[in-house]
This record gives sequence, structure tokens and C-alpha cells, in this order.
Amino acid sequence: MSRIGKRQAEPLHDKQSEPDTRELPIDKVGVRRLLFPIRVRDKARAFQNTVATVGMYVDLPHHFKGTHMSRFIEVLNAHGDAIHVENINNILRAMRQKLNADTARLEIEFPYFMSKKSPVSRRKSLMDYTARFDASAAGSDHDFVLTVKANVTTLCPCSKAIARYGAHNQRGEVAVQVRSNRIVWIEDVIAIIEHSASSELYALLKRQDEKAVTERAYENPVFVEDLVRNVAVKLNADPRVTWYKVQAENFESIHNHNAYACIENPKRG
Amino acid sequence: MSRIGKRQAEPLHDKQSEPDTRELPIDKVGVRRLLFPIRVRDKARAFQNTVATVGMYVDLPHHFKGTHMSRFIEVLNAHGDAIHVENINNILRAMRQKLNADTARLEIEFPYFMSKKSPVSRRKSLMDYTARFDASAAGSDHDFVLTVKANVTTLCPCSKAIARYGAHNQRGEVAVQVRSNRIVWIEDVIAIIEHSASSELYALLKRQDEKAVTERAYENPVFVEDLVRNVAVKLNADPRVTWYKVQAENFESIHNHNAYACIENPKRG
Amino acid sequence: MSRIGKRQAEPLHDKQSEPDTRELPIDKVGVRRLLFPIRVRDKARAFQNTVATVGMYVDLPHHFKGTHMSRFIEVLNAHGDAIHVENINNILRAMRQKLNADTARLEIEFPYFMSKKSPVSRRKSLMDYTARFDASAAGSDHDFVLTVKANVTTLCPCSKAIARYGAHNQRGEVAVQVRSNRIVWIEDVIAIIEHSASSELYALLKRQDEKAVTERAYENPVFVEDLVRNVAVKLNADPRVTWYKVQAENFESIHNHNAYACIENPKRG
Amino acid sequence: MSRIGKRQAEPLHDKQSEPDTRELPIDKVGVRRLLFPIRVRDKARAFQNTVATVGMYVDLPHHFKGTHMSRFIEVLNAHGDAIHVENINNILRAMRQKLNADTARLEIEFPYFMSKKSPVSRRKSLMDYTARFDASAAGSDHDFVLTVKANVTTLCPCSKAIARYGAHNQRGEVAVQVRSNRIVWIEDVIAIIEHSASSELYALLKRQDEKAVTERAYENPVFVEDLVRNVAVKLNADPRVTWYKVQAENFESIHNHNAYACIENPKRG
Repeated sequence: MSRIGKRQAEPLHDKQSEPDTRELPIDKVGVRRLLFPIRVRDKARAFQNTVATVGMYVDLPHHFKGTHMSRFIEVLNAHGDAIHVENINNILRAMRQKLNADTARLEIEFPYFMSKKSPVSRRKSLMDYTARFDASAAGSDHDFVLTVKANVTTLCPCSKAIARYGAHNQRGEVAVQVRSNRIVWIEDVIAIIEHSASSELYALLKRQDEKAVTERAYENPVFVEDLVRNVAVKLNADPRVTWYKVQAENFESIHNHNAYACIENPKRG
Repeated sequence: MSRIGKRQAEPLHDKQSEPDTRELPIDKVGVRRLLFPIRVRDKARAFQNTVATVGMYVDLPHHFKGTHMSRFIEVLNAHGDAIHVENINNILRAMRQKLNADTARLEIEFPYFMSKKSPVSRRKSLMDYTARFDASAAGSDHDFVLTVKANVTTLCPCSKAIARYGAHNQRGEVAVQVRSNRIVWIEDVIAIIEHSASSELYALLKRQDEKAVTERAYENPVFVEDLVRNVAVKLNADPRVTWYKVQAENFESIHNHNAYACIENPKRG
Repeated sequence: MSRIGKRQAEPLHDKQSEPDTRELPIDKVGVRRLLFPIRVRDKARAFQNTVATVGMYVDLPHHFKGTHMSRFIEVLNAHGDAIHVENINNILRAMRQKLNADTARLEIEFPYFMSKKSPVSRRKSLMDYTARFDASAAGSDHDFVLTVKANVTTLCPCSKAIARYGAHNQRGEVAVQVRSNRIVWIEDVIAIIEHSASSELYALLKRQDEKAVTERAYENPVFVEDLVRNVAVKLNADPRVTWYKVQAENFESIHNHNAYACIENPKRG
Repeated sequence: MSRIGKRQAEPLHDKQSEPDTRELPIDKVGVRRLLFPIRVRDKARAFQNTVATVGMYVDLPHHFKGTHMSRFIEVLNAHGDAIHVENINNILRAMRQKLNADTARLEIEFPYFMSKKSPVSRRKSLMDYTARFDASAAGSDHDFVLTVKANVTTLCPCSKAIARYGAHNQRGEVAVQVRSNRIVWIEDVIAIIEHSASSELYALLKRQDEKAVTERAYENPVFVEDLVRNVAVKLNADPRVTWYKVQAENFESIHNHNAYACIENPKRG
């Protein structure tokens, strides 16, 4: 008798499908920290290759003991190699079907690259950002949050105002989360962030570029408070955006701690 | 004329207090990633020394350009060396006064140690946990969330049921957050977590202890779903607890990804 | 007059090329934590896309004040998109020329994926590893170290021997570094590591696979000491390998600390 | 018969002491990532409380299968609460005796705090550093390496030289490792690092302090190369220091990557 025949004849016990009596539904159960190579469609309708860290979750009704974790991986293998906003709903639908669940959640975070030219010598180099999709489907409700993290230069207005020369400046990280009624591209959010800081960052700066970036930062000082407000003003003016949260954190060059500011959802009301 | 006299005669410009016209209040602005040595009062009314990572924030009305970051440090220096639930409100009050703010938020995360005896040989050793306080005061409202993270052993019920011998098991991390109407001690939450797993962890196990722990885990298999439910059952039965969130993450020994489950707030109803 | 003409007419001061009088040569100066999308050639002569974290360094003679950091980025842009052992020497050569240096060093670390079949149901899934190249050229000397990190299952022989049933097991990380006289592929090192543990890991395991993996681990207990010795025996027998270092770290399921073992270079002598 | 009597009558198998036939001695085996509260003696002969991450290792001769991991914890519990250079040798001696080993290694890393006054207003605040001891004993040889990591401000000389106003600056991390023939205190190394940068950092700076720190940094520009050379000059002049390694990494405010420099051991020869 074949091994497969034997396995079919004596099915292995399905522990997960046993009933549970604790009367406690579970909000979110699944897998996380899955590394997976993906292709992401960018605004120019091209694809870029990157590596994502993935989380996949469903809800579990109170009467089941466990979910079937391997099915998340099967869905990811079947759908996950090319990710764009349109096919995320296919993944969520497959998760709900395959895991027999009401609610499905998908988290995908990945480095994202853009080619940019230095400001004077116009040399091209790649700049890295972090992007993240948080998508969920529950009944007929769908939710999609795009997160973009971009690093920038911030130069302190107080330091500039009080010192005879110079001004402390530093790398800062801005994280913007948006919900929208039409597609907002990763590139759109990056542009909003980079235009809200003292200067954007570049991988490649020749001497004349460094001069320009240094002077530009000195001419455009921003507190961490200014940075989140500058971003918020632009998001308020964008009719696609229905909700947002902006966080900025400066790795202060004169302190060993960071300065932080956050504005959430002023579109309420 | 003394330097101090000169400084008083020519005050440095207060950039932060300038008016702002973007009409955007900031929800949260302050400092984070401050390392600070603290003493924490434990359940036995003794103090233990540890090192905290601190965040301190206030709100900022729309008409001010910036907050005064150095005042957070002054408050922390004045109040921060011995932290317990009672004096956290003093810190929040000082933050609101000193920074002239409606809302103050304090985040304190630190390693926390408990001495425990191994199960058979009764040898003592220190076990490390992570604790965190998230406290805020806004107007007359106060909020306090205690978070405790404890690592445990989880042994897979499915693996045990289907294999002729053995069962995969692994280290898992459980994070419990609670709001309560009376003091819930860090030690109380640790006990709840450790009694919900296949086994608790120990720094020191002699051979007879390792035998006991191995057998105990095999006798008490739990899915990540069981783990969060076991904790939730105990928190539901605790009259002090008014809200909670339980998360568990297993560093699966047979996968390179983790299994995760979460229950939030079933006391709502 | 064009801007470029103006810049040429008034060259910006080259601070880095100023003489230095401290009489101290610098061993290693350059850039690190550069994220860069790369294609890596795998053993099957295909390419896979991934994202690398890159470090690039040269030496600096005692009489120069500084190196020209932007030139590292120019070399990476010109050569870095498809990385394999053959073209790494081209990158090192370009670094030495462009930066006018005797010594060049390149560090490239990236997630690496292999498709593997589960042991019984033969379902395919991707497993992630970490690979790293440390290459340097100094005068006519070249050095190349391949590092591969693979996670595995380890089941404790002591726990199995003393307990009536079960045995603690956990995820462990093995890091192998090799120098060789012929190409050793990432896939070769992964195979050596995975055959030295209680079991290899899989992203996708159906129930019959989980049974097989559980039983296999129980049948092949290894201490962290056994793991590094099993790898070392295989590397000793490989005529391509001229030097190696093996490290293993078990994320113990019964402790909150890790067990660690290391063997370095027994091919000396 | 009592369980204890039974256990004494039937001793549990000592798997670790079994012979091993692979003919491979292990260089380093033990435990790591142990969190442990310690008291460290500072230069002023006072003690400060902190939390250490500890690693403890021995060698293992080729004829033994495994080491006895629990004995590391017993040694740490017996000796570890107050750490200073004098009692580290006691810990190493206890490890060698208890584990019957030729070689013992101890790694202890911890946050370290110093109170410092701001430069003008003379307000006190705590600044955090990282310190680390790497101690080993093999036969009659002892080795001790002190590592100190301190963060500083670095202001770019090139940016200052070419820009009409301003200069990019950032937080940088300096790591110094020293071997010495007499005690070198953590405070000594911190002073060397802080006097080699554009400015030291402070937790608390009032407006007049921020003015002073901004101007001081602008007056003292340093490349990452200057930073390691400035430290090296001071270590060369210190007769206590017999070996050193200096590394500096700048979190560039105009790039998303870091600049790095390293000088190792110019006291050779």
C-alpha cells in the first residue's frame, strides 16, 4: 500500500478544528515576520523588485480552537509576488475563503527606491524609503492605509536665531499614514514629505550639490512641529485624502534623545 | 558687567513662542528615547533599580510655533528617579504646569526582574521581563495603561497529537496591556501570563528541573490562540481590570516566521 | 556665462585634499548602511532580486585630511546592480582607482531566498536566509569571505534523555563564514547547515509534513555544540574550503537567554 | 519512597559528559543575551546601578559532548551583582573551576550615566553612554578590553568651507576599545571622545546653552576622519594604553547612509 494511500486511510487528527468552550473569539490570529520577495508597481507604471516583511491575519470565532496557519502561506505563494493596490483585495478575498473567516488583514512593509538627481550637478542616485500597506476586509467593509517613511534634513530655527553663526541640524524621520478615496502613490507622499523639510536627502552629492543643500537647509529652518504642520497643510489640501496621521522624529545632533511631533486626523468634524 | 547681567540685558529670541498661522494644533510633541536610571517600587514594597527608556509629550495649541523641549528634561530630573504609580501623576502635573499644556503624556519602558526558584531543586535565579507605563492627563481625565511582556514556553497541540513522539515547542512572547480601577502589579500580570503557557521560563535549571519543565510543557500544549484565551479568561475574572489587550507571538521552532494572536477588550459589552 | 562655466572658473575649495599633520593613516574610511537593490546570481545560474545593505571603505594615507565619500556612491551606481563573485573584483578595482587608494573593502548583506518542498506533501514555498560578502583588495592581495546565516530546529539531547516524554526544542541561528580556493555557493553552505541540525525549517508545512518534521527532530537531537561540530566536520571534508568560522545560537525555549557555540579555523596547522 | 530519594537513587543521565568522537574542540561555548542588574564602580569610587547584557563562555575539549550551561548562571548569581575591574578576575576564576575549563570569557555591556552641567547655565542633567567589558583568562594569560561608546556632534568642514552660511552637522557615534597596563576609567575614555568632536551632547540645554553649543560646533568642524584621528592622538599620548581601536560613524544629516572611519592599533611596532 502506498504511503499516500495510508495517509488518506488514516487521516491525521485536526486539532485546530476542535470546539473551544472558553467563549472567547480572537480578533486577530495569523503569521508575521514572513520575508517575501515582491514586485511593487510604481507611479510610472513600472515594477520595482524589493523584499517585504509580511503579516497575515484573520479573526477566529469563539467556537474554534485554532486557525490553520499553513493556509496563509499558500495564499501568499499563490498571489504575493506582484503587489499593487488592485490585487491586494484578491489576496484578502483568498484569505477569507481559504481560512473561512469574516475578517482578513494584510500588512506588507518594504524598502522602496526612487532615482533622484542631485540639485546642481544633476547626478542620478537611488534614495531609499520605507513603504507599508495595511489592508483589511471585514464583511463588505474594506480598509486600506498607506504608510510612507522618508528621512529628511531638519535645521533648528531656534539655534539659527540665537547663534552668531551655524545652526544645529540632523537627519529626521517622517512617517505619514493616509486613507484616501482614490489612489495616492508612494511617490506622492514622498514629495509631500520632502517639500516640508529643511532639505531632502540624496545618496550622491558632489561638492556644488553639498553647497546648495547646506544653504537650502539654512534658509529653510523647521522645528519638528513645523515639519508635521507643513505635511498636514498639504494633506488637508489634497481632496483624495480622507484621513491621515503624521509623525516626525529628529535625531537631534546636540542631544542623545530625539524630538518628536504627531498630528492625527484633523479632517474629523 | 557680568555675563549673566549681559544675558539678562539682551534676552535671546524665543523662537518657539512666536505665533503660528497654519491653524493646526499638534496632538503630541516632546522628547523620546531618553535613557534614565530609575527605581521602581515592586509589589513587596521594595524598590528595584533599572534603566528606563522615556518619552514625554504635551499637546501644542495651534497659535504657538513650538514647545520648549528642555523643560521635559527639567521635569524628569526633578521627579523621575523613583517611579511608582502614585508619583506618575505628580510628573504629569509638573509637565502640564511647566509646559503650560492641557495634555501631558508619559511613556516609561524598562526591564524588570523577579527572583524565582526552579521547580524541583529550588535554586533561585533572576528572570527578566519588560514593563511599561503609558500615563496621560488631559483636563480632569487621567489614563494609565500598564504593559507587561513576559516570555514563556509554548508546545504545539497539533504537533503533539499527530507525531508518534515529541512535539515542536519554542519561546513565545506575551504582551498584556491593562487598564484597571485599582492597582494591578507587574507581578500580578506576570503570574497570569506564566500560568497560561505550556511552561514558564527560568534562568537557572538543574537537570531534575529540566526534566520537570520538559514534561510539564508536554502535558500542557497550547496554541498561540490558547495562550491569549487563557490570559483573557483570567483577566475577565479579575474585577480590577476594566480593559485589556493580549498579544502573543511564538518564535516557531519549525518555521522562520512567527505565529501571532491578539484579543482586545472583550469587556466592552 | 553658463553656471557650469562659472563653477569651473571659481572652483569650490577641496577641504578633503588638504594636508594632515597628525601622522595617522586611517585603516578604513567610507560609507555604510547604504540600501541598494541588487540582483545576485544563484547556483542554478539564474539571478534573484533582493535588497542589500552595503558598506564601502578604503584606507587613507596619513598626509590626506579626508576621503571623497561621493565617489563610493558613483562606483556603486556604475557597478552594483548585478552582484556576483566575478564582478566584485571589478568594483574593488574601481574603488581603488576612483579613490586613489591602496586598499578597498566591500561589505554586502542581503536576504536570500530558496524554494524548497515540504518533506511529505512536497508543497513548494520560499525559505529566507541571510548572505553576506566581505571582499577586499590590498596591493595584489585579494580576500573574499562568504557568510551564510540559516535558521534551523534544534532539539536538546539532555532534555530528551531525562524526560519521560517530549524534549525542548527551538529555533536556532547558524552563521558560517568561509574562505575558499574555488567558488562555494550560498546554496552549498545552506545545505551543510540544514543537514547539521535536528531539522531544517520550512515556510509551508501541511499536517503530514509537520508530523514528519516533529518526529525527525526528536530522532536527531543536537546540542548547540553538536550543531557547530556537525558543520565543522563537513567543512573539514570540503577541499574548496581553506578557512571557516561556525557560530550557532539557540533561542532556548526553556530560558530567556540563548545558548551559543563557536568553532574557528581548525584547518590551521 | 520520596521523589527526592528516588531521584538520588536513580541519577539522571549526564548527556553532556558523554565522550565525543568528532575530534573537534570548541573555541567558545556558553550563554548570551542574559539580562542582569548590576552595580558598576565609577571613577569617583561610588557605585551606579544599571542593567547589563551578559555573555559567558568557556572552551570545550574535543573529547566532551557538551558543557553544563546552568553553571554559568550559578557563577553569575554568586558574583555578578557588583562589577568592577578587580572582581572580574574572580568571576573568570569561578567559571574555570566550576566548568572545569582552561579558558573563560566574559562579556558585559550596559548603559552608563554621567551627570554633566550645561556649558553656560550650568544646569545638571544625566547623559547616557554605553560601556562594555570583554575579559578572558586562558592558562596564566588574562585579557581585558574596555569599550566605551559615546555620541557627539560632528560638523562637516567641507560643508562649512563651501557654503555661504550654515554647515551640515549630525549626531555621530564613537566607539573606543582599549587595552591598558593600568586602569583606564570609563570616564577617561568619555572625556577623550567628547574633546575630539565638534561638540559633546547634553540632555538639558537652555537657550543660552544651545547658542554656545551651536557656535562651538561651527568653530570646530570635524570630518569622521578627524574624529578618529583626534581620539587616536590622545590615546597615543596616554602611557596606560597598550592597544586601541577607534571607530566613528556619522548619521549624516544630508544622506540616508552613514560615514564611517576606523583606526586600529597604531601602537604596533
